[in-house]
Amino acid sequence: MTPVSEATAEAGWLDIPSGSAFGLHNLPYGSATLPGDPRPRVLVAVGDHVLDLTSAAERLLPSHSGLFRDGNLDHLLGAGPSVWREVRAAVSSWLTDARSERALTSLLHPATDVTMRLPFSVADYVDFYASEHHATNVGQILRPGTEPLTPNWKHLPIGYHGRSGTVVPSGTPVVRPCGQRRASGGAVLFGPTTRLDFEAELGFVVGTPSRLGDPVPLQAFADHVFGVCLVNDWSARDLQAWEYQPLGPFLGKSFATSVGPWVVPLSALDAARVPPPARDPQPLPYLDDSSTEPWGLDVRLEVRLGGQVVSRPPFRGMYWTAAQQLAHLTVNGASLRTGDLFASGTVSGPERDQRGCLLELSWGGRDPLALPDGSTRTFLEDGDEVVITATAPGPGGTTIGFGEVRGAVAPARLNA
Amino acid sequence: MTPVSEATAEAGWLDIPSGSAFGLHNLPYGSATLPGDPRPRVLVAVGDHVLDLTSAAERLLPSHSGLFRDGNLDHLLGAGPSVWREVRAAVSSWLTDARSERALTSLLHPATDVTMRLPFSVADYVDFYASEHHATNVGQILRPGTEPLTPNWKHLPIGYHGRSGTVVPSGTPVVRPCGQRRASGGAVLFGPTTRLDFEAELGFVVGTPSRLGDPVPLQAFADHVFGVCLVNDWSARDLQAWEYQPLGPFLGKSFATSVGPWVVPLSALDAARVPPPARDPQPLPYLDDSSTEPWGLDVRLEVRLGGQVVSRPPFRGMYWTAAQQLAHLTVNGASLRTGDLFASGTVSGPERDQRGCLLELSWGGRDPLALPDGSTRTFLEDGDEVVITATAPGPGGTTIGFGEVRGAVAPARLNA
Repeated sequence: MTPVSEATAEAGWLDIPSGSAFGLHNLPYGSATLPGDPRPRVLVAVGDHVLDLTSAAERLLPSHSGLFRDGNLDHLLGAGPSVWREVRAAVSSWLTDARSERALTSLLHPATDVTMRLPFSVADYVDFYASEHHATNVGQILRPGTEPLTPNWKHLPIGYHGRSGTVVPSGTPVVRPCGQRRASGGAVLFGPTTRLDFEAELGFVVGTPSRLGDPVPLQAFADHVFGVCLVNDWSARDLQAWEYQPLGPFLGKSFATSVGPWVVPLSALDAARVPPPARDPQPLPYLDDSSTEPWGLDVRLEVRLGGQVVSRPPFRGMYWTAAQQLAHLTVNGASLRTGDLFASGTVSGPERDQRGCLLELSWGGRDPLALPDGSTRTFLEDGDEVVITATAPGPGGTTIGFGEVRGAVAPARLNA
Repeated sequence: MTPVSEATAEAGWLDIPSGSAFGLHNLPYGSATLPGDPRPRVLVAVGDHVLDLTSAAERLLPSHSGLFRDGNLDHLLGAGPSVWREVRAAVSSWLTDARSERALTSLLHPATDVTMRLPFSVADYVDFYASEHHATNVGQILRPGTEPLTPNWKHLPIGYHGRSGTVVPSGTPVVRPCGQRRASGGAVLFGPTTRLDFEAELGFVVGTPSRLGDPVPLQAFADHVFGVCLVNDWSARDLQAWEYQPLGPFLGKSFATSVGPWVVPLSALDAARVPPPARDPQPLPYLDDSSTEPWGLDVRLEVRLGGQVVSRPPFRGMYWTAAQQLAHLTVNGASLRTGDLFASGTVSGPERDQRGCLLELSWGGRDPLALPDGSTRTFLEDGDEVVITATAPGPGGTTIGFGEVRGAVAPARLNA
């Protein structure tokens, strides 16, 4: 019998450490392999453990066990909101009902024992640019002397398609990319990027597809989006600066995008919903969320570099919500597929220590960031490890955790 | 017995019309359903017929029949160049050796009887911008008074990621997209695009994947790219103009991209290879194709609007070749997946009747295009059908055809 600690914050037969960000109100989903077994499993994080949902569903939820057999979230994502609710209710009931203990004990593994994988197959990847603080800072840094926000910025959520084939799971080394950059004197050089950066973001995972030609209105957001994960949109600023006119970022972003191992269901974020910032001008009707339940989210990100906290970006101030992004993304009739991932864009708050990337933290490299240990950074160095975490308020004073997305910089492969 | 006509241009037991663009030197692959049977098949086009390769391989090439069982090109693409050669040699031998006639006759269907499908599952879709004439025209039209080519244009093949989930097969109606545009007075409007356009392009289909972090050099182009198809990259110019700064095209392109039904194997294009244009400045070493067999291609496109020829864009003048595009796309370590599609960008030649889109043909709408029937167009109207075809020289005076990519404009879905 697993002893039930008095410190357990929530009811249940499982010992969940007090204050855990993976309590019974969270129950995020991921994919992993267990020690000595190459078959991937769908997992649910709970406390310091993970539940092997692929095996648990075969015993306790046979009607839905096919959803988990491939060991990733793809079939669950595609099953739609009513199945999402059924599965979540089932897992929650198992973990609170002592009668399930016997069936599940052998399917709980210490979280540190498993090897997490990409949780789902990424269909299309879109990256937005929804923090006014970030966009304003970047405009000032990259286009000094001009209006920092382009004229369209407050009319629509600016976004672009990224490379879904290079979305990688947390822990994947990020090989320093090579490419073209222009030196300050104008010469065009080739070599490893000298301005490698992270971008702290949240990613929204589409479950329910839509039909080509049919927009998905604001109100339908939760019918289509399954959940939220951490994203680090690695960027090579020198490559990006040279290439991005007129068609946008390409090689400066396409070498790697890391996603966190846990997809937090949207329904775990009810207590984190907050009003979004005031918008001026008023958005066009398809983006006007003033008469809907808005999707501002009080998620607090934290970025560590080499173990030292360098930023705490607040998601709640994002100008455009994910619901507005989805409505915009589809207003031209573009269809959604199960596994589409759209990210928020770099999350930056108004304060210096709330900026979500080194481009802003070092102000384009001109003002090196001092780390707590006395070292400084303008951009990332080989060996640097970046870890992004996030939490949000859950019901009744609980905390909802997103886990962490982690990546270390590996040296460029020259003569590859 | 199928009679062998004296007019048959190439040896073989099958009656192939003289001068057919689908002779024995072409043998492109596609996917279709046959009348009364919902199971998709891999097909090979030959003359006015299609060969059901899924069934033929079960009888005559059982070692590889698994490649075709799903009815699309995915497994063949992933099998790599030696298998591509084996399959092509086998199909070619069947169609020239009268001993195969008995086994294959029932597997040949009139091309008009089958319903073509998307030939492969599109992984990532990238669109380049490789015609100097197109880029110069567009720069003059959209950014008058500035240098039409951005400073980076002759240093690297400009490209961006598109939406792979809205790549659709030829024949799919294109619903006129809605979106934001800015009126000439500055007001931001919402509604159906008033500047809907086509873009005539070629698409290159990746078969062999690559490892994250490893560039694919120019010389490895044919190890990774399986073949070539037609692409129509539909564009809403008013949406695009308003949204594309600073992160590139998004909703102006993401509503639909049509691809042709036939993927012409790279090996069918040997006789079409021509030197590319001279480059100035000399490209960086990873893009310098002067000491390799270059990949200029003498493919002649033709665009018909409502049945009337409006343009004949020549592919051979494209500034950047597909091999250079692939080398650039991967030089930062971005990996390739089977099914990646990268398109050339609009193909435009130096002459007015060689321009590959209406934006250029009507010079931004200021100079309406006169059609042979006396009507005019600035941009596409509801009901307009655009058909793009292409041919290339084959060996011995033969012609290699790409078939056609077809799409008609459907009215906007208001209140959807």
